Amino acid sequence: MRREFRSLSVPEAAHQALDSLPLTGVEKTPLSQAHGRVLAERLTAPIDVPGFDRAAMDGYAVRARETFGASEAEPKRFPVAGEVHAGEQPPAELDPGEVHEIATGAVMPPAADAVIPVERTNEGETAVEILSAVAPGDNVMPRGADIAGGDRALGPGTRLGPRHIGLLAALGQETISVQRQPRVAIISTGEELVQPGDSLDSTAGQIYDVNSHSIAAAVRAAGGEPTIYETAADDYEALAETLGKAAEKVDLLLTSGSTSAGSSDLLYRLIEQEGDILLHGVSVKPGRPMLVGTVFDTPYVGLPGYPVSALTIFRVFVAPQLREASGRPEPPSATVSASLASRVRYDGGRLRLLPVGLVEAGDGSLVAYAPEKGSGATTTLVETDGIVRMPPEQNMLAPGTEVTVERFDPASPIPSLLGVGEPDPVLWEALDTVEHSRFLPLSQADTNRWLADGIPDVTVQAGRGDDSDRGTGSEIATWEREWGLIIPADNPQDIHDCADLTREDVQFANLSPALSLRSEFDRRLETQNVDSDAISGYHRELPGLASAAQSVAAERATVGIGLVETATELGLDSIPLGTQLLHVVAQPDRREKPSVAALERLLSDKLSG
Amino acid sequence: MRREFRSLSVPEAAHQALDSLPLTGVEKTPLSQAHGRVLAERLTAPIDVPGFDRAAMDGYAVRARETFGASEAEPKRFPVAGEVHAGEQPPAELDPGEVHEIATGAVMPPAADAVIPVERTNEGETAVEILSAVAPGDNVMPRGADIAGGDRALGPGTRLGPRHIGLLAALGQETISVQRQPRVAIISTGEELVQPGDSLDSTAGQIYDVNSHSIAAAVRAAGGEPTIYETAADDYEALAETLGKAAEKVDLLLTSGSTSAGSSDLLYRLIEQEGDILLHGVSVKPGRPMLVGTVFDTPYVGLPGYPVSALTIFRVFVAPQLREASGRPEPPSATVSASLASRVRYDGGRLRLLPVGLVEAGDGSLVAYAPEKGSGATTTLVETDGIVRMPPEQNMLAPGTEVTVERFDPASPIPSLLGVGEPDPVLWEALDTVEHSRFLPLSQADTNRWLADGIPDVTVQAGRGDDSDRGTGSEIATWEREWGLIIPADNPQDIHDCADLTREDVQFANLSPALSLRSEFDRRLETQNVDSDAISGYHRELPGLASAAQSVAAERATVGIGLVETATELGLDSIPLGTQLLHVVAQPDRREKPSVAALERLLSDKLSG
Repeated sequence: MRREFRSLSVPEAAHQALDSLPLTGVEKTPLSQAHGRVLAERLTAPIDVPGFDRAAMDGYAVRARETFGASEAEPKRFPVAGEVHAGEQPPAELDPGEVHEIATGAVMPPAADAVIPVERTNEGETAVEILSAVAPGDNVMPRGADIAGGDRALGPGTRLGPRHIGLLAALGQETISVQRQPRVAIISTGEELVQPGDSLDSTAGQIYDVNSHSIAAAVRAAGGEPTIYETAADDYEALAETLGKAAEKVDLLLTSGSTSAGSSDLLYRLIEQEGDILLHGVSVKPGRPMLVGTVFDTPYVGLPGYPVSALTIFRVFVAPQLREASGRPEPPSATVSASLASRVRYDGGRLRLLPVGLVEAGDGSLVAYAPEKGSGATTTLVETDGIVRMPPEQNMLAPGTEVTVERFDPASPIPSLLGVGEPDPVLWEALDTVEHSRFLPLSQADTNRWLADGIPDVTVQAGRGDDSDRGTGSEIATWEREWGLIIPADNPQDIHDCADLTREDVQFANLSPALSLRSEFDRRLETQNVDSDAISGYHRELPGLASAAQSVAAERATVGIGLVETATELGLDSIPLGTQLLHVVAQPDRREKPSVAALERLLSDKLSG
Repeated sequence: MRREFRSLSVPEAAHQALDSLPLTGVEKTPLSQAHGRVLAERLTAPIDVPGFDRAAMDGYAVRARETFGASEAEPKRFPVAGEVHAGEQPPAELDPGEVHEIATGAVMPPAADAVIPVERTNEGETAVEILSAVAPGDNVMPRGADIAGGDRALGPGTRLGPRHIGLLAALGQETISVQRQPRVAIISTGEELVQPGDSLDSTAGQIYDVNSHSIAAAVRAAGGEPTIYETAADDYEALAETLGKAAEKVDLLLTSGSTSAGSSDLLYRLIEQEGDILLHGVSVKPGRPMLVGTVFDTPYVGLPGYPVSALTIFRVFVAPQLREASGRPEPPSATVSASLASRVRYDGGRLRLLPVGLVEAGDGSLVAYAPEKGSGATTTLVETDGIVRMPPEQNMLAPGTEVTVERFDPASPIPSLLGVGEPDPVLWEALDTVEHSRFLPLSQADTNRWLADGIPDVTVQAGRGDDSDRGTGSEIATWEREWGLIIPADNPQDIHDCADLTREDVQFANLSPALSLRSEFDRRLETQNVDSDAISGYHRELPGLASAAQSVAAERATVGIGLVETATELGLDSIPLGTQLLHVVAQPDRREKPSVAALERLLSDKLSG
């Protein structure tokens, strides 16, 4: 019933299978769309530029030899026999002893061989005085002097920037032969997927479709042209119809999801019946259940369903093919070296593509760290910057190992500041003005461990004034926040104290133990001798600082815990129970880091203001 | 009549004038268009992700405590009371002593608190054997564990890459607040301009419109959204209509051309009457005649008409405004340090924005060189890589000066190979396979000078086996090419020799003295005692290696000089007059440079094959 992956292919076999799929080609694009594309063939200049001897200054077209001897003291005087502007045929050949008034860019009259600039003349009604001599060719750009017809103008492989677009325009090229921008269809599969913007029924296990959108952006970044097709149901006929329709229009079909052992049969069967399977299952982690083949005569790759896995497999196996086809190699900044902060263990057996985050240490070198959320977490997407490859035979990376990080998104900067610890609104607001900062909510224990491992620039910890539990580091800011019970406006249930929480008419909303407010609350219950098991909802732990307050606002609970500030924001009332001290602590050797210094200044201004 | 620029503003005043124009703002974009844009405001997670306790493996949902003690030796057996797939509501609460089959991504049934993976079970018809214990929470991602509603998800200023697009999708965001991508209208002015693809009348001084296209691409690279408007005639009413129409739709109006002293009156008058002139004339070279203001209530900048000047002024004054508005700072690679190869003289008085090319020296450092074509040449666009600023008071830069080069187009690689000298088809073909190579045709004298200044990687020179005139360097390839008189097929005029060229029925097409073929030809005339003045067309010098042959093919001439190979390509006949030896010579310290080594290999294969 459930398909097992009996023989996994090595990653090299996956690369080879993908290499065999025909994605490269040449296509025509109009000049207006050519920016950023890659020239497919040599461009030989079809015309001379300029196409005529061209005046390079405003002034008078002359026979140079007739100006010899002219000077300010002894100007030479010539009748002005004609006038020629840019975009006009010159009126006539220049007769000896005469000049034509001429504008920059105009065609030199036959027999004229130089231009005397207007600044070197005295203009009269019908004649002009020339105040200096010019040599033949002066202030004239001869036909073909810019580029001669028949000369090599641009080589194949040129990535067309604004300057090349300019030269293409100068040569009159309206249709440009460029390397194909492969058209890629993206089809997410799964009954549970809902498109962003539509409403979500979480009780029925619906989630928003992430992969269609992240992979579409990644296709674009690799030089492809993505089209998102409707999410296919887990149904053979529907899937076959969607893939068949898409195959007519694109160069590559990508699916994500439905390749896990549980439901891969459907796609596997479809590809087997309507095409060829080149490869099924690759010995990598994440991404084992990857499919490569052709279906409906179109190259096909099945990506895993988890967002981090899908993007990782795309990056490692598919993006290189698109980059090759579109002629856009990865920028040199796509790969960086970093020192691994903490030990990474791995049970081995497959090539591990380990997602890591990056942060700049005090000495400017990069530190890589591996967050512990799984590949199922979408936040891992923005909390990591790339992958480190661990060969199958390797089951440990020691702290301090120099690793090569293949960045997910070299166009995005490496975070300027990494903060970890207790979430807090004051900090969030400060971070909004530190560009490219990153903050990861972590429990107090994890926070201290990360600080000791030299990972974050700053940590945020809540305490009651007791310094012993904040690890080593130098404090750069501290402030108080008030917390308490969050209740609907006007306190309809007449709640005054923790003792009221055990009442039968009270439905409580609790917070996760990873949040320090929860520990404060538990201590308070103990002090007041309130039995937590008697509180309805106590064991239902909500994840975020504002989650319990939101439950009250949504009338899913009648009382919760949270910050007094959050209650006010949501239009709720609160019963203050205490204050917490927040401490922002910096790695001692990173206090001078510009982002840390900026954060310290910002918090100091904010807290004193 | 002609407007002089009496009081030029300093460049800082131009920056200030541009700073005062309102380009920044916030706009909404659909998720599908958000890749590469910059988030305008903080995104707070509106929902928990996942929105429910989610199975992280395929297997069985259990009450963890009921599995305690299970092992392979002593499996525990449970009836399977239900089944839940992704995207479904769980059938019922899990009763004590039962399990539900569950798929990855499905909602955990109420009262279940862990998933036992299918691999740790023996499946039966209606019951399952569980082979190991799980702890509460195992293989379950609790609601909000990825991100909790109310938490800060992304900060303002985030440049949206594929990963951020993924998180936005996960949070259900279909409409994203991003920094405005300023809409920019581009209007080239000039009666002489023709759009690429249309036919060109060179005798009437027509040229292709370059600036509309190069500036549109540069606008896009700086984060703006360009629209090219029809080229406006040099006519007040037409110009006013075009600008007025465009002003309704865009955030910034750009014109190019018509700002030179000769024809600036028109634009100046128009801006003065329909808007405000903030600044007219800036003390920079190139670009003095720059206009900044507003017209029809829309910010306006008038760029110079010459392509290099237009792109330079855009890069220095306009691009920073667009980058600021769109939130896309220049990449760090936009500025590089280089050592100047040759002396640059400058008459001073204005800030000089000197276009320079870049090449990598033998030791990997960058060398900058200033080609001598003026800003009127469109080839300067692709033969240079950026600008060096020379302050007004500076009138010389010595060789070896360390300069800062502001690159025109950091997305394009710095050339991998720089060749200069005699154009030749064999070399062109070899260059087609050296990626990102650059070749500048130069006369022999210039070629030797550039080689001595340490600029090119390789030079190409034609000679007759005499080594004395090829400067210093090590030869990496040499070959022969045959040249002669190019005549129509079947030689209708019965030409046999240079002596025939003086016949009255012959119209000759000559080549520029910058080409070595011309010198060969002149020597031949001398040897044969042919009077060049008696040859009709001798003084009409054509610019490119193939130009004379093309004249014969187009029946503008009856005989010309050129390569025998060119005659064959064009379906013409030829009368061979001699052979030339081509020499490719490398800078001695760059023979190991990968591109030079590749060229040497390519030429060796080609010439031996």
